[in-house]
Amino acid sequence: MNLSMTIAHTRTAPNHPGFVPVAPRTGRLRPLGLDEVRITAGFWSQRQSVNHQHTLAHIGHWEEREGWIANFDLAANGGLPEGRRGREFSDSEIYKYLEALAWEIGRTGDDGLEAAFRDAVGRVARAQEPDGYLNTNFGRTGQAPRWSDLEWGHELYCFGHLFQAAVARARTRPDADDGLLTIARRAADLVCDVFGPEGIPSVCGHAEIETALAELARVTGEERYLQQAALFVERRGTGTLRQIEWGQQYFQDDMPVRQADVLRGHAVRANYLSAGAVDVAVDTGDEELLSALVRQWQNTVARRTYITGGQGSHHQDEAFGADWVLPPDRAYSETCAAVASVMFTWRLLLARGDAEYGDLIERTLYNVIATSPSSSGTSFYYANTLHQRTPGVVAAAETVSPRASSSLRAPWFEVSCCPPNVARTLASLDALVATTDPEGLQLHQFAACTIDTQLDDGQPVAVDVETDYPRSGSIRITATRNATAPWTLSIRVPRWAGQAELTVTTAAGEVSTTRADAGWATVRRAFQTGDVVELLLPMRPRLTHPDPRIDAVRGCVAVERGPEVYCLESVDLRDAGNAAIADVADVRLDATAPVGEQDGRPVVRLVAAAAESQEGRAWPYAERSLEPMPSTSFDVPLIPYHEWAERGPSTMRVWMPVLFNQPDRE
Amino acid sequence: MNLSMTIAHTRTAPNHPGFVPVAPRTGRLRPLGLDEVRITAGFWSQRQSVNHQHTLAHIGHWEEREGWIANFDLAANGGLPEGRRGREFSDSEIYKYLEALAWEIGRTGDDGLEAAFRDAVGRVARAQEPDGYLNTNFGRTGQAPRWSDLEWGHELYCFGHLFQAAVARARTRPDADDGLLTIARRAADLVCDVFGPEGIPSVCGHAEIETALAELARVTGEERYLQQAALFVERRGTGTLRQIEWGQQYFQDDMPVRQADVLRGHAVRANYLSAGAVDVAVDTGDEELLSALVRQWQNTVARRTYITGGQGSHHQDEAFGADWVLPPDRAYSETCAAVASVMFTWRLLLARGDAEYGDLIERTLYNVIATSPSSSGTSFYYANTLHQRTPGVVAAAETVSPRASSSLRAPWFEVSCCPPNVARTLASLDALVATTDPEGLQLHQFAACTIDTQLDDGQPVAVDVETDYPRSGSIRITATRNATAPWTLSIRVPRWAGQAELTVTTAAGEVSTTRADAGWATVRRAFQTGDVVELLLPMRPRLTHPDPRIDAVRGCVAVERGPEVYCLESVDLRDAGNAAIADVADVRLDATAPVGEQDGRPVVRLVAAAAESQEGRAWPYAERSLEPMPSTSFDVPLIPYHEWAERGPSTMRVWMPVLFNQPDRE
Repeated sequence: MNLSMTIAHTRTAPNHPGFVPVAPRTGRLRPLGLDEVRITAGFWSQRQSVNHQHTLAHIGHWEEREGWIANFDLAANGGLPEGRRGREFSDSEIYKYLEALAWEIGRTGDDGLEAAFRDAVGRVARAQEPDGYLNTNFGRTGQAPRWSDLEWGHELYCFGHLFQAAVARARTRPDADDGLLTIARRAADLVCDVFGPEGIPSVCGHAEIETALAELARVTGEERYLQQAALFVERRGTGTLRQIEWGQQYFQDDMPVRQADVLRGHAVRANYLSAGAVDVAVDTGDEELLSALVRQWQNTVARRTYITGGQGSHHQDEAFGADWVLPPDRAYSETCAAVASVMFTWRLLLARGDAEYGDLIERTLYNVIATSPSSSGTSFYYANTLHQRTPGVVAAAETVSPRASSSLRAPWFEVSCCPPNVARTLASLDALVATTDPEGLQLHQFAACTIDTQLDDGQPVAVDVETDYPRSGSIRITATRNATAPWTLSIRVPRWAGQAELTVTTAAGEVSTTRADAGWATVRRAFQTGDVVELLLPMRPRLTHPDPRIDAVRGCVAVERGPEVYCLESVDLRDAGNAAIADVADVRLDATAPVGEQDGRPVVRLVAAAAESQEGRAWPYAERSLEPMPSTSFDVPLIPYHEWAERGPSTMRVWMPVLFNQPDRE
Repeated sequence: MNLSMTIAHTRTAPNHPGFVPVAPRTGRLRPLGLDEVRITAGFWSQRQSVNHQHTLAHIGHWEEREGWIANFDLAANGGLPEGRRGREFSDSEIYKYLEALAWEIGRTGDDGLEAAFRDAVGRVARAQEPDGYLNTNFGRTGQAPRWSDLEWGHELYCFGHLFQAAVARARTRPDADDGLLTIARRAADLVCDVFGPEGIPSVCGHAEIETALAELARVTGEERYLQQAALFVERRGTGTLRQIEWGQQYFQDDMPVRQADVLRGHAVRANYLSAGAVDVAVDTGDEELLSALVRQWQNTVARRTYITGGQGSHHQDEAFGADWVLPPDRAYSETCAAVASVMFTWRLLLARGDAEYGDLIERTLYNVIATSPSSSGTSFYYANTLHQRTPGVVAAAETVSPRASSSLRAPWFEVSCCPPNVARTLASLDALVATTDPEGLQLHQFAACTIDTQLDDGQPVAVDVETDYPRSGSIRITATRNATAPWTLSIRVPRWAGQAELTVTTAAGEVSTTRADAGWATVRRAFQTGDVVELLLPMRPRLTHPDPRIDAVRGCVAVERGPEVYCLESVDLRDAGNAAIADVADVRLDATAPVGEQDGRPVVRLVAAAAESQEGRAWPYAERSLEPMPSTSFDVPLIPYHEWAERGPSTMRVWMPVLFNQPDRE
């Protein structure tokens, strides 16, 4: 399949394009909605089930408990500012919760969620002011004036999340009478009045409204919203925000979007901004801007991304570090940055159609988005370290945690952006699975699902996907409609796979097998019901080496299997029966031994190499190598990184030091 | 020499103990004053000369320019709070400047500095309120009330620096009529009233007043100040300060001082607190407290200290990281933390007498204190990175920099604690060179100097020290008085030296040579004028390996020579004639080649190993080793770390990756 590197065709957005999170007007690929793709079983289905049953209620509970929803009640009854609780941006968490509910209601039709949604929307609605303004933290007597703190106030950021919630609702329940879309439009009209070409010539310190305005334009057909989004994108980088200690790059105000070469500054802001800039580029036909974003994505992935897909290595400013600064033990890798990276990357995938975008989305989903929530769905990582040095302390079940103080999952945070961000991602995940183009159907993510859609020419296309991926590498796609004309089924072959085997078994029993390199495996035929295409991905565990410019993991390897990054957790060291070797610091990986496998988990050969006792060495630098003498070797299973810290306090590392010969040792 | 591990004897502090920065009432060693030890030539003399001629005036200029001194004028004439400039703790910078001036005036008798000192003291004096309170940021109409923000307000911290300035002045000009000591006493009396046993039961978020009150007690004989210092030390760690995002360990309020095992939290605060706690311990005979501090020092040095002696690896909270978290590229290693570490360590040296304290002081002086200021003495590092990845941007000469935004030296910072902290350290450096005990004289630091003092029994002891250390390892000590009885000359043999050669040449021409291990080299005799003791330290460059638990520098070595840490700066790569190898990321050190020497600088054998071009690799993790194939080798000289960034923008690294065989490469 030849996927052109230019925007190939232009569509006019329908008023109701289906249950799609993102509906660009142009682009190589057409997104499918939650009404066209339904994940039915397996890894992500289980995650979605936990999200549905536990996480959404957990979020509602905490937003109520912390008074963040009640802030809207106070706004309506004159109780502000005295009674207000939460940080200046807490309104946004309610909007993200609403967005998650909207997708989940669309996906499942759950009546209980619908009631919760309507209740919260009603409370938000009563807080809106006559001119459309809506924010519980600004503008009243005793509060800072509206728009008086664009750097840190997050007013436009909050509006962005409001708009995204309204878009989700409008797409999934276009005829609902809850009024959320009207609330959003009134607020958006105010934003356009206040920040339009003749208005305040600045932007929000936290990008987000750009993508939201573009989507609101797509839903409503209101061009003014798109123009405002474009204006915000163009203004960014012209230095309209104050200089701060961490530099204007913190909010990407250091250089115009179309001039930058790489993402920098606050990792969530950078990715949200990029997502919005893609929306503007594809809806206005701005190929220069789109090319700039592709370049930034490529450089960011090549130099500033963890093996997990996580982004942002600075705790200080939640920001990207310089190229190659990717310390595992001080990884920030904020959950929300992963959510934002998926948003940016998905938009580039729709615009350009390249398989590599699906690669990053897959990696980020399995290794950050799936890592943040506990298996119970009621505690979360805000930051996602790749190396836990001390067992840490479990947060009390009913305690609000500082946003990134612990490496153990916490039920809620003072800045609690991550839980609802995970929830809205999981609730709309089905939409990331597949797309169509004029030629056929593209499968980007591998999950058991049903797909039922039609191509641009009106031909219906439907398949069932069966797989227990990532446990196995078999993805079996069965046609469930008879085609009237040939169409192309394209399946992403991940870069990590190198190559895949593709077997076509027709309903008539004919079998043919081919091999496909990383990129796209394609089958073009007039598919008949019962035709089966099976992609077989190599799922042997593999050792992965880092670029040597990532100094922080020199001399280390990681183990991956399929899309999953694995880690060594101290619990498994203990279980391996080496009482003396209890910590992940005390072993080396024998890279000369093949990586084994046991119950689908990689098993590595480790060598005990406990350092001299801490007490015994007064100074940690010496003229001779201090590398400990290795002793016994033993085999230990690894666990998927997203499963760690589920068995009590532990230490953990993704990157394991390799056992070297020791020529320097005296 | 057998230095007992207990507090060996008790002295009663004289009213004027000489020009000493620290005058504990008990301890193994007696400090000497600036009037007893005078550095006369060499490395530190040159630094002191720059400090005298350039740095002090530079500080005065900027404190005036930024309005920080004028804040006191405004306080006196009712111009506050409207006109106030600077951060909430800017008063303290004026006090540190005063302290630096006081030592420098004591050391040199400079009339110009005396005039500057008196002018500033006069302006401070007029701002003091009738009850002794003195702070330009609190307590007036329109300002926050006094003591209303102990976590962040820094009021007691500012008082601490005021007291230290007054102590410096009282020790060096006991008969001066400038009134600074009176100002300090009035403020200290207020502190005792407000924070005494019946007062506010809390502490300052930034420790500092503890050591200052103890010293003020020593100068004035006012026991109440010592009791208040002890009270502050005991209260610390009992959770009287608010919980903050970074945890109460940020201000060491997480556990009582006598229970802690290691320094943690904000590195400057931790060391200032520890210095004050030693003062309290030795003046109240609290051996339990002292032992706790010794233990904390040992663990901090063994696990949380950079090879430079620098401490604190977090940018976020300027804090110590967990054990072994010592990333070179994100080293914070704040200059002020080094100053504070020297203060803490010097106090332990006086209390316990062990040579290892002098080892850390030497390392910290040469590799952090000497690194912060430029050779011109008019620009500074706030943070001291050990790995500069990008050439960076030179700050404009007349620009105030964010406190740690750049790795290039800046003339001044919004938080400008470091420049005056360096200045006061250099101005009082002579006092760190030597001590006495009942047996004789101890030489801790090696600098050309004259020492003229007397032992406890009244016997005068005087020597001249000649050396161009650290250029050479010869330290030649000549007796300049005839002894009336034998005394012991003890010379620190640094741990880095392993062993040293000691040659005694008597005035009568007798020569004897011995060898001494790290610790103390001692000579006991009735020294006669003209007796010469020469210590010869091995100054060959040496490769240094890190403890493998410091994951961030795995597979790397550093080069040291004498007390100096060396670094590879890109300027020297360029000069080595390898046009293609311009960056310190693009080489490996051939550790099989001996380290050479050229003009006193180590020369290392490097191997060009440029990574594949950034554009060529879309993802920085791979199944094969990505270690580049080494090509040509060439020799490059290193420079002392404290000399880097003096030749234009550059990249730099202290830890250099070692060339390994590449068994994994396909």
